[in-house]
Amino acid sequence: MKNHLFFIPAFIFSVLINIGGVASLYSQAKDSETPNFIIIFADDLGYGDLGVFGNPSIKTPHLDTMAYEGQKWTSFYAAASVCTPSRAGLLTGRLPVRSGMASSKSRVLFPNSKNGLPASEITIAEQLKKVGYTTAAIGKWHLGHKPEFLPTNHGFDSYFGIPYSNDMDMIDTNIGYSEYWEQPFDSIKTAHFNVPLLRDTKIIERPANQNNITKRYSDEAVAFIEKQGVSPFFLYVAHNLPHIPLFASKDFLGKSKRGLYGDVIEEIDDGVGKIIKALKAKGLDRNTIVVFTSDNGPWLPFKNNGGSSGLLRAGKGTTWEGGMREPTIFWGPGLIKRGVVSDIGSTLDVFTTFSAMAESPITQDRIIDGLDLSLSLMEGAPSPRKSILYYRGSELFAVRLGDFKAHFITQGAYGQFGERKEHETPLLYNVAFDAGEHFDVAMKNPRVLKDINDFISNHTSSLIMAKDQLAERE
Amino acid sequence: MKNHLFFIPAFIFSVLINIGGVASLYSQAKDSETPNFIIIFADDLGYGDLGVFGNPSIKTPHLDTMAYEGQKWTSFYAAASVCTPSRAGLLTGRLPVRSGMASSKSRVLFPNSKNGLPASEITIAEQLKKVGYTTAAIGKWHLGHKPEFLPTNHGFDSYFGIPYSNDMDMIDTNIGYSEYWEQPFDSIKTAHFNVPLLRDTKIIERPANQNNITKRYSDEAVAFIEKQGVSPFFLYVAHNLPHIPLFASKDFLGKSKRGLYGDVIEEIDDGVGKIIKALKAKGLDRNTIVVFTSDNGPWLPFKNNGGSSGLLRAGKGTTWEGGMREPTIFWGPGLIKRGVVSDIGSTLDVFTTFSAMAESPITQDRIIDGLDLSLSLMEGAPSPRKSILYYRGSELFAVRLGDFKAHFITQGAYGQFGERKEHETPLLYNVAFDAGEHFDVAMKNPRVLKDINDFISNHTSSLIMAKDQLAERE
Repeated sequence: MKNHLFFIPAFIFSVLINIGGVASLYSQAKDSETPNFIIIFADDLGYGDLGVFGNPSIKTPHLDTMAYEGQKWTSFYAAASVCTPSRAGLLTGRLPVRSGMASSKSRVLFPNSKNGLPASEITIAEQLKKVGYTTAAIGKWHLGHKPEFLPTNHGFDSYFGIPYSNDMDMIDTNIGYSEYWEQPFDSIKTAHFNVPLLRDTKIIERPANQNNITKRYSDEAVAFIEKQGVSPFFLYVAHNLPHIPLFASKDFLGKSKRGLYGDVIEEIDDGVGKIIKALKAKGLDRNTIVVFTSDNGPWLPFKNNGGSSGLLRAGKGTTWEGGMREPTIFWGPGLIKRGVVSDIGSTLDVFTTFSAMAESPITQDRIIDGLDLSLSLMEGAPSPRKSILYYRGSELFAVRLGDFKAHFITQGAYGQFGERKEHETPLLYNVAFDAGEHFDVAMKNPRVLKDINDFISNHTSSLIMAKDQLAERE
Repeated sequence: MKNHLFFIPAFIFSVLINIGGVASLYSQAKDSETPNFIIIFADDLGYGDLGVFGNPSIKTPHLDTMAYEGQKWTSFYAAASVCTPSRAGLLTGRLPVRSGMASSKSRVLFPNSKNGLPASEITIAEQLKKVGYTTAAIGKWHLGHKPEFLPTNHGFDSYFGIPYSNDMDMIDTNIGYSEYWEQPFDSIKTAHFNVPLLRDTKIIERPANQNNITKRYSDEAVAFIEKQGVSPFFLYVAHNLPHIPLFASKDFLGKSKRGLYGDVIEEIDDGVGKIIKALKAKGLDRNTIVVFTSDNGPWLPFKNNGGSSGLLRAGKGTTWEGGMREPTIFWGPGLIKRGVVSDIGSTLDVFTTFSAMAESPITQDRIIDGLDLSLSLMEGAPSPRKSILYYRGSELFAVRLGDFKAHFITQGAYGQFGERKEHETPLLYNVAFDAGEHFDVAMKNPRVLKDINDFISNHTSSLIMAKDQLAERE
């Protein structure tokens, strides 16, 4: 050992001399060791919508390969069951109730919303930027469309995308959604949803031509990768689809056995393939982590234009597993240990994990809910996460602790609407064993319910609800 | 080209001289070119019970790898929704109604059944044996337990297994199944089901110790592979599990997040891994096709002791997709072209495909329902199969033609029991698009219904129902 300890500094010293100084060595070493990060975030994708998550009709060869070469997480959760709070949780590592991005009055932000993600919140982009990362956001934002709330004011060097959901800014709300279900490709449809497309904070197209929006996002991501230099980078690609209304570009229309919905997923998968290819072409594949997941479960009331949660119960908008458990893949052949992980993970953890891996210290001035999954990702260690808090808006509806999940309130089943039920004795499911939440085991497990109640008391006692940022409209 | 044509025969001629004659060269060439075949058949496995088919709790790394390296078929069907007719269909390539192995009076064979698969039927084993294959059956038979009906009288050189379902021969039928659901491991449970274990036609153990039956079947399969010489071989490994009652050996008890049911699947997967490993150790992996599938869907009334059909509707015993669509994988890195196949396939096709690949002519004296999938397997060509006939017993309940499936009669939903409904206008689903059979599209597709009716007329006009072999008891 002593020999080794002596030998290594001597070797490093000789390298220092050869390349001309400490600073440049450190900088080069840091550049090559510091991983790049890419988040590919789908919108309303169901747990059962990818090939490797069991879909029989939709082909996703690139995501299947990512899952096989990387880590497929089967109990990975979004931070909320709808768009805005879910994205706030992903980017800040904090429960949306802590940032005001969850509300009892409005589930998401709208084009006439007054506010957005507060400037005081710290995003992954800000965490990484402060340690030298180049950052870019592409796609759906939905954390405030006014300039002060846009990505370029939240740590991203650049932004290209539609700032909220692709079904907003409807020109004639009387027409209703039903017009759009069975039409695969329609310029009128694009025109009808008058959503803007932004470059940084500037509108460059309105209505955004959504017919090829998925392709444009993927191409933009590839272009970003191609122009990277020595700095590490963080790229956030948030597709607007498969949120309705559905669009696929000409090359994908009619390609899938699953109709337009399948075409959309197959085009997203194609984009994933292009991103991986671009990484390989730049020799960055061994030093980049790509994570693929979704903001919430499938929007089931839209029938064949919504996805499937597979064997999970219910979908988007609910606190059943189908609403928040997401098909999640971490890929990075030089960094991620291959395998299937059934331990619990959360999009909240991405903030903390990436910060740890990039050695960017996390502020101690606030509660961060994310946990560091880096040992699970790199070494296959058990996940440090043992719990999930299922909020609906600002109300805690359900809690998973270990294998068990207690529902205190449920609302909606097929869709997010429906009767609200408060359960005097919570419904209790072993969701590791019975992921479909079929068999209530509350009567047999009073101790588990007590543990969950204690866990909640501990959580709520330290919870300070932030000012609601979603309710105010102009 | 002329040079090559000249050179090759000259080269072969010199080899002939070296190894001593035409006959031995031909025999060696045939041996090395003729593929070996292994069928691994699970019992009551659900469409959603393997990792690569979307199960979040059960880990199946070996089957996942087989799927990734081979062909994952997502629209592959069993020949029936219960055990006996499904197995008759698999082994003969004929609809069970043609062999008498489907009945309106008894869905399967029982320990007091008088008959079994008629001697006049030709099994895959007989097809392959006549062109020089060594053949072996391991596991559940369920095509007649009397000596004349056993595997050794149907083309298999040897047999080791329980000749029918593992829940038969109950010692005290008053105890009922419910006693056995929550017990993971129990010698009393084994004793209670007094099923015999046979070596060829001889009972070697009774009751069969089911606690390690899966392991014993896999070990027996490995031992068979290890002792193979120059002849090609056909190995049929039909696990008794995950049919209830569930058993796993000590190494697997408590291993899975999915309880005993998951433990059972993980032990089957482990056995698959051992079989692949044995093939590799013998250098046979490039010349062997392994197909993994199941006899029918999950037995849902048994709750957590039954499996899951994933996003498919219903399970075992029904003609919904969950009853007959099976998680199917073809593996053989030297022979099978990698990919995901959503085209239609059937266990009926295994007979015809293996016969074609082994160059064993199929008799013209009867109707064979199997189609030759070898070009799909080896070259990725479209499947020649465009239809599925969903029989319940001897009655045709539903038909899939292309993407569409018409239900004329339905019975059972959660389980196989329940009200029988005859549909004046058939229920029609696009099961490529809507594999979960949620959205009836009969009203919009009168032409499709007409095509299906024409298809059925054509089928029934040539159908000769064989004498019922299942009804008679002693």
